[in-house]
Amino acid sequence: MPVRKKIVTIGGGTGSFTLLSGLRDYPFEISAIVSMADDGGSTGRLRDELGVLPPGDVRQCLVALSEESKKLRQLFNYRFETGDLAGHTVGNILLSALEKMEGSFSKGLDLAMKILRIKGKVIPVTNNNVNLFLKMKNGKVLKGENEINHNFEISKTGIEKIYLKPQAKANPLAIKAIREADVVVIGPGNHYCSIVPNLLVKGISKEICRAKAKVVYVVNLVNKKGHTDGFDLDQYVQSINSFLGKERIDFVVYNNQRPSSSLVEKYRKRGETLVQFNPTKKIERNYTIIKGRLLGKLSVQNPADKISYVRSLIRHNSQKIAKIIRYISEMGEYEKTISEIIPPSPKK
Amino acid sequence: MPVRKKIVTIGGGTGSFTLLSGLRDYPFEISAIVSMADDGGSTGRLRDELGVLPPGDVRQCLVALSEESKKLRQLFNYRFETGDLAGHTVGNILLSALEKMEGSFSKGLDLAMKILRIKGKVIPVTNNNVNLFLKMKNGKVLKGENEINHNFEISKTGIEKIYLKPQAKANPLAIKAIREADVVVIGPGNHYCSIVPNLLVKGISKEICRAKAKVVYVVNLVNKKGHTDGFDLDQYVQSINSFLGKERIDFVVYNNQRPSSSLVEKYRKRGETLVQFNPTKKIERNYTIIKGRLLGKLSVQNPADKISYVRSLIRHNSQKIAKIIRYISEMGEYEKTISEIIPPSPKK
Repeated sequence: MPVRKKIVTIGGGTGSFTLLSGLRDYPFEISAIVSMADDGGSTGRLRDELGVLPPGDVRQCLVALSEESKKLRQLFNYRFETGDLAGHTVGNILLSALEKMEGSFSKGLDLAMKILRIKGKVIPVTNNNVNLFLKMKNGKVLKGENEINHNFEISKTGIEKIYLKPQAKANPLAIKAIREADVVVIGPGNHYCSIVPNLLVKGISKEICRAKAKVVYVVNLVNKKGHTDGFDLDQYVQSINSFLGKERIDFVVYNNQRPSSSLVEKYRKRGETLVQFNPTKKIERNYTIIKGRLLGKLSVQNPADKISYVRSLIRHNSQKIAKIIRYISEMGEYEKTISEIIPPSPKK
Repeated sequence: MPVRKKIVTIGGGTGSFTLLSGLRDYPFEISAIVSMADDGGSTGRLRDELGVLPPGDVRQCLVALSEESKKLRQLFNYRFETGDLAGHTVGNILLSALEKMEGSFSKGLDLAMKILRIKGKVIPVTNNNVNLFLKMKNGKVLKGENEINHNFEISKTGIEKIYLKPQAKANPLAIKAIREADVVVIGPGNHYCSIVPNLLVKGISKEICRAKAKVVYVVNLVNKKGHTDGFDLDQYVQSINSFLGKERIDFVVYNNQRPSSSLVEKYRKRGETLVQFNPTKKIERNYTIIKGRLLGKLSVQNPADKISYVRSLIRHNSQKIAKIIRYISEMGEYEKTISEIIPPSPKK
């Protein structure tokens, strides 16, 4: 039997859910490293009222990797619509109860992984209780992931600094997973609110930089209004590399399948544009770009979850992304999925 | 292998939890019929806000019969202490989510029984959404189990009528279980708020009366203030038989072990006295009384659950009650547990 490749994913929320839903069907050893900066919605209320760590992103990864029945996974994602519980998902409530019961988020998570029979591991990027801050170039400081997420002046004003407070220390399990990984997959996901917060945790970026793994970046499909307006593929890569502190990304996975015009128009009206790739741009790229028709069908986890519904309209096909990750991990033959591979610029 | 005796329990809440915790360790086929009249606390809020059926009593029975790990059972009983979730148990929240997700309480319960790997069955006495009403002799009508539970003038004023509204129809599964039972165990539990509401459901009392089963009544340890003040063993039996519509009780299980004086005094100060038995009372008894030293050690399910803590101070020993039920089911030899058996009065 071939050795199972060790895949580490870095992200949070819906992006990680999509990625992991595909990876779980391959013979990988998966470690899902998850951002712990969320403080909005159900997660924010639980943090405030119970003093727990943010369960929302972890929950989505658990559901994606669970080998339990579809019903139990559906229950975990069930979101209440009325009363005091409105907005809370069952999984968020359960993770918070487990944290209180077991005395720490990580012990509670261990139990949740057993109950849901997880394929692989879900690893909070830090065990510290931290919040995300963003200082704009006009001096204004946005406090918390939720406030940052809902501010649409960030790209216009410019970012002076984005940071966690208090300074977060990497979860040793995350460090170990990165060190042993064959492939580290960064993204997809909300750039400043889900992906970058992982890289801000002390020790994570450094460990990625020195790891033996191939580092893959799955670029988003759509630019977030007011955050990454007009970013193209190379700008995303540049941004991630700058947080890593080194030009570390080896592969970039990019979708070149165009959604229907009506869908593109719907997004455009909300101020969201498709991420473009300009092959003739005069820059030196030291990463391989893997392009493919990577769009998935709309698949809504929970019809009551309207946020996820909207988010899900233009989304990746989990299976195809997973196939590309496998290709990268084995450098085998997957031409049917991959329509073009653009190698790094030739060395001068 | 001997045939497994079919035991049906009728009750709700802590009383059923105690009884079932003992019965589960014997080779019985257990069906726990549970009152659906609760409308207080966490259960009441979920009924109000989500329009679900009352989960609280069912939850306690599920936990008692679960073959899942202690941790999962502990999680089900975990009660939040702060925020919007304060007072809710995880199990109540889960049962309500399952009901909403599956479209009916009974389908949700089926899934919960699978998740918790239940030994036997938990059967809501009715699938109708009903409330308990109590009309006192002064004309005042108490609406809902919670209001009745917290009114302490009932025994003084006298009861004109106690009824469910709308009229509840028996769950066919409950009828079937009673029909096939070898032993039907009524009680222990809150007399008017947990036990009697089962007998008010159309079809239940009639089915008990005509069942082939031996009917056992486990009399409470303590009289509830303002409800059953000063009731002795015979008065409880008389009350239950009057709701059944026939002198149907065959066996009465009674504790003759005295708790410590300090504990008795503590209860007395709250207006709660021990249930007495007067063997010299001049009445004709057509039931066998089984007496024993039946007190259990204090065992608190969840230290955060202060109500259950207080309720639990004088409680039955689950194992000993179960042993007596087995004795009755097999009429074997259990002299070590049973200190005295008082047969029915001789026929005149």
